[in-house]
Amino acid sequence: MALIGVKAFVFDVFGTVVDWRSGVARDAALFLERRAINGIDPLEFADAWRRRYGPAMEEVRSGRRAFVRLDVLHRENLLAVLADYGIDLTSVPAEDVDELNLAWHRLDPWPDSLSGLTRLKATRIIAPLSNGNIVLMLDMAKRAGIPWDAILGAEVVQAYKPMPEAYLRTADVIRSSAGANVPGRRAQQRSRGSEGMRIQDGVCCAPDGTWAGADHGFEGRSGLGRGRA
Amino acid sequence: MALIGVKAFVFDVFGTVVDWRSGVARDAALFLERRAINGIDPLEFADAWRRRYGPAMEEVRSGRRAFVRLDVLHRENLLAVLADYGIDLTSVPAEDVDELNLAWHRLDPWPDSLSGLTRLKATRIIAPLSNGNIVLMLDMAKRAGIPWDAILGAEVVQAYKPMPEAYLRTADVIRSSAGANVPGRRAQQRSRGSEGMRIQDGVCCAPDGTWAGADHGFEGRSGLGRGRA
Repeated sequence: MALIGVKAFVFDVFGTVVDWRSGVARDAALFLERRAINGIDPLEFADAWRRRYGPAMEEVRSGRRAFVRLDVLHRENLLAVLADYGIDLTSVPAEDVDELNLAWHRLDPWPDSLSGLTRLKATRIIAPLSNGNIVLMLDMAKRAGIPWDAILGAEVVQAYKPMPEAYLRTADVIRSSAGANVPGRRAQQRSRGSEGMRIQDGVCCAPDGTWAGADHGFEGRSGLGRGRA
Repeated sequence: MALIGVKAFVFDVFGTVVDWRSGVARDAALFLERRAINGIDPLEFADAWRRRYGPAMEEVRSGRRAFVRLDVLHRENLLAVLADYGIDLTSVPAEDVDELNLAWHRLDPWPDSLSGLTRLKATRIIAPLSNGNIVLMLDMAKRAGIPWDAILGAEVVQAYKPMPEAYLRTADVIRSSAGANVPGRRAQQRSRGSEGMRIQDGVCCAPDGTWAGADHGFEGRSGLGRGRA
């Protein structure tokens, strides 16, 4: 994996940079305690919430639903999970649902995330390329001290991973040259947009080697973006 | 100007955080020297380039042209300025045009910009709300050490200032609550989107007081966003 000329590293976040499961469980436990609801394992609650993540995004990826940011999907999924557990939604104030929904904004990094990112930041641009929306990533980073140079990801490019557009449009956004008229994100991604890109082992490199993106969600999908764009 | 509960400060950049005129002139001087072109004042060259900035964006703001990022407009404007000065465009390699176009990515902050922003960053989110595109702001910040928490602005919301959408959509992006289904940037901004916002003296506050944006481009436009949204 040649890193010479690599300009930027972009990262998956949930599970990669931060520990979503224990963080969500922590806030779920507080929520349940305050309501004196017993018999629900907060970790199982977190898992149940997360299980709805993929299907909710799939509605958007499939085109059946216009893009909405992840906070909106998380909140809808939370209401569904609460209902699944038999919790009377009319008894829960909307503000309390909002508050628990912000659990995703308060996740803690893994012990080595900050030191690793800080080392990379010294010589490269570092940014999330997460399905999490901008303010989610921003609140999380501000609270935990994650030193992102920018907040990239699904909301910026209006596409959820692992759609090729999520990666290809991000590549366009962080490409410095304006020599070619870069297509807007609304425009159909033209094949030119990915010409000559290397997308392998989770690293994308433009022909001039000026950028790269690393994302575990793209691993094993080598050539997917190139092939489908 | 009450700042209690203010979550974020967003800034105009060209002229506010950085000195565009001397920076562009510096790179223009190098470009002209290398070609042994005499008789062009680099500062006047910078002014001529900048004079095309507003009209180029106006094509987008008016809806006559789909949104393209500022790097693209800058490059088109650069070609026009070179032609205006009688420079034979066929004699200038595209890479050299690209390189000069990146002058906007290499602007220097005013002497007190970094210390002031660093102080604000200690307790608030700070981000550009510039018409400059993401990688332009990112390259600039990385080179100069501007400690933005995120890169917001025209490209993220697909609207150029001073259109109300540029401010209102940014407000939506950095609002933490997902209680209401936040309209996507593609959707028509509904009146609900700006309900109860205070937009005054360049500061926008949501009803819950959790965010604010300050931008000199919005000064004197109090109520414009609210009135037109």
